[in-house]
Amino acid sequence: MNILVINAGSSSLKYQLFQMEEGNILAKGRVERIGMETAILTHEPTGKAEVHEVREILEHTTAIRKVLELLVHPEHGVLASTSEIDAVGHRVVHGGESFKSSVLVNDEVKKEIKRLFDLAPLHNPAHMLGISAVEANMPGVPQAVVFDTAFHQSMPAHAYLYPVPMALYRKHKVRRYGFHGTSHNYVSERAAAFLGRPLEQLKLVTCHIGNGASCAAIMGGKSVDTSMGMTPLEGLMMGTRSGDLDPAIVPYAMGKEDLTLGEISSMLNKHSGLQAISGISSDMREIVEALEAGDKNAALAFEMYEYRLRKYIGAYVAAMNGVDAIVFTAGVGENSELLRQTVCERLTFLGVEFDEEANRKGRGLERRISKQGSKVEVLVIPTNEEWVIARDTFGLIQSQNIRLELSKIDFSHGNRNSVQ
Amino acid sequence: MNILVINAGSSSLKYQLFQMEEGNILAKGRVERIGMETAILTHEPTGKAEVHEVREILEHTTAIRKVLELLVHPEHGVLASTSEIDAVGHRVVHGGESFKSSVLVNDEVKKEIKRLFDLAPLHNPAHMLGISAVEANMPGVPQAVVFDTAFHQSMPAHAYLYPVPMALYRKHKVRRYGFHGTSHNYVSERAAAFLGRPLEQLKLVTCHIGNGASCAAIMGGKSVDTSMGMTPLEGLMMGTRSGDLDPAIVPYAMGKEDLTLGEISSMLNKHSGLQAISGISSDMREIVEALEAGDKNAALAFEMYEYRLRKYIGAYVAAMNGVDAIVFTAGVGENSELLRQTVCERLTFLGVEFDEEANRKGRGLERRISKQGSKVEVLVIPTNEEWVIARDTFGLIQSQNIRLELSKIDFSHGNRNSVQ
Repeated sequence: MNILVINAGSSSLKYQLFQMEEGNILAKGRVERIGMETAILTHEPTGKAEVHEVREILEHTTAIRKVLELLVHPEHGVLASTSEIDAVGHRVVHGGESFKSSVLVNDEVKKEIKRLFDLAPLHNPAHMLGISAVEANMPGVPQAVVFDTAFHQSMPAHAYLYPVPMALYRKHKVRRYGFHGTSHNYVSERAAAFLGRPLEQLKLVTCHIGNGASCAAIMGGKSVDTSMGMTPLEGLMMGTRSGDLDPAIVPYAMGKEDLTLGEISSMLNKHSGLQAISGISSDMREIVEALEAGDKNAALAFEMYEYRLRKYIGAYVAAMNGVDAIVFTAGVGENSELLRQTVCERLTFLGVEFDEEANRKGRGLERRISKQGSKVEVLVIPTNEEWVIARDTFGLIQSQNIRLELSKIDFSHGNRNSVQ
Repeated sequence: MNILVINAGSSSLKYQLFQMEEGNILAKGRVERIGMETAILTHEPTGKAEVHEVREILEHTTAIRKVLELLVHPEHGVLASTSEIDAVGHRVVHGGESFKSSVLVNDEVKKEIKRLFDLAPLHNPAHMLGISAVEANMPGVPQAVVFDTAFHQSMPAHAYLYPVPMALYRKHKVRRYGFHGTSHNYVSERAAAFLGRPLEQLKLVTCHIGNGASCAAIMGGKSVDTSMGMTPLEGLMMGTRSGDLDPAIVPYAMGKEDLTLGEISSMLNKHSGLQAISGISSDMREIVEALEAGDKNAALAFEMYEYRLRKYIGAYVAAMNGVDAIVFTAGVGENSELLRQTVCERLTFLGVEFDEEANRKGRGLERRISKQGSKVEVLVIPTNEEWVIARDTFGLIQSQNIRLELSKIDFSHGNRNSVQ
């Protein structure tokens, strides 16, 4: 079975085509600057040369059509026909309280994703464009949606509610949802497999540290808390997002600088974090380069970033009253040796014994960076959100097929007399 | 030496008169509803009957005059003359970055306190009323100011800066200041004395849990982090304050409910916290009563409150990479057996061994509520902010007197030849 995974943004679209039985990637790529006459299409078929095109792509339906053309292209393609694509899986950022797991797309699901536009105004509308574009190009092909929030729906009320008037929850759905759920889910499963221990018995703190970043407390395979909140702004310091701050700063800064609601949101989401403190970059690689060259603002930005991450790890260990393993993943988590080292060397009170050598080796591989016998294990697990989306879509299709097969069997036979 | 300690609010004024050499309280009391024709004056002279008066008190100068009259009253008084009051110490909430310790009041100090009105619009103007009222009634008597923020001025930049554009710090003083400093300072000193260990070698998490609540991480006697921020809104869940939340909730709620800057601040400061979740009370005693009677919202409010406190303790232990003792103080911290027990029983990973029996005994006394041999000690230390204010004022007066004495000595004698 071949499954196409789509991550649609407002002006971009990323895709990966998986052959499921083997777990292979047949092709991947992206379309950027959708809506422009100079959109950029990048197509990477496995084992073949990369394709780069700059062309007019004005909306998502066209983008999907171009992708499908490339997937079956005589030279650059990997399939004989688009009919070999059995299903499409979409990343959807916000599933609110409605979606506690991945689901197949139907009218009711589409309606509900639209009802959630309010909570994710930048993301969910773009995902809907992706779903519609697939429908237009591939009518009848089953689609599934996999939500960034779904894994965290297991949080208890004392972790997901905010201490604000309950009317905000009831009327406006103000609560913690959390994001990066597919990643936290995946790396927690992989961590258990790596450790050779049942996930049901583990307490994990998973640190998904990319340009966006979040921690999660995972007990027995269930998310019990996570640092992103109603939106992806809360929690850790990030590339351009502030993360946690005194909520009173919001009205104070609005008043002092005469900012609108949109302007303060933009300031906190796009002009804060590493970028604001370093004055250099939102990219941890450039921050580390600058601090190693002696830049004081970069050093301060790194220190704040590490400090806030370490405090979250401590908080989640307290939340679970213990921890078996700390897991680093995503761009910064997988690649910043300095961040992992600094955090771990300051968590010796937990019993973390850090292995400096292991930390420097094996980039791209699942590995242990704590010493053998460390009371708390520290792992690096490369994340793979696209694979989780493909796998969930595969599972949904399989169980639907089973239901379809079952529905063909005439179970009524023995009961014929009871129907009058 | 007798020192009068004043805590002036916008419509209230609390006072305590200390005899410093013995450390005795000679009298204490409060004036409430200042500005009303039915202000209430309560005077408690030590060893004498309490006085209650309802009378017209329209502003702070009158309030201080009434207090002084009572202090020297033939029947209710404790002094022969107001000239026996050697100095006055004031609590001032916000000292910004200007005040790193307590100081004697002079024109420059008053100007600076006024410059900080912006950062503490509800508090600092009221404190200035108190200072002026004392000046008017007791001209020439030295006054000192003791700041809630000063003890936390030792925080490093990575703890006090927020990851927002640096212009907000430079132009508008947006940073973490922290509050309850006199209390965190006092209980950390007392904890070291109780443990018989040098404060310089201790890592402490102090939990000042009253109607307002904050935690502090104290290393070697210095505050290195604290949960309240630029304002007292950040951090722990409190009686009516939210504490931490996704900063994006602020503009979201303002937009949804069409709230002004003042209204959202009021919502988060006065209508959130325990009050909002329980729907019953902002008072922990009533929450515990209700949850013991089976009220589900009270149980949820308690659970959130405990959970958020426990996460802060974990975060600060990680911030210091270890902890020697956890200290509970202030109204809830000193009195809620259930809160202390719940927190401690869920921190066994730190090596906390909780002593249930000790937790129930000795109300009002400094005591250990962890078992003998517990890896991390847990203490209850009743706070005494008024005593710290009196002590700081006493110290400032003493060293001023020494300077005055020194200035009378003619040190120029041996150098006469060098002055031409």
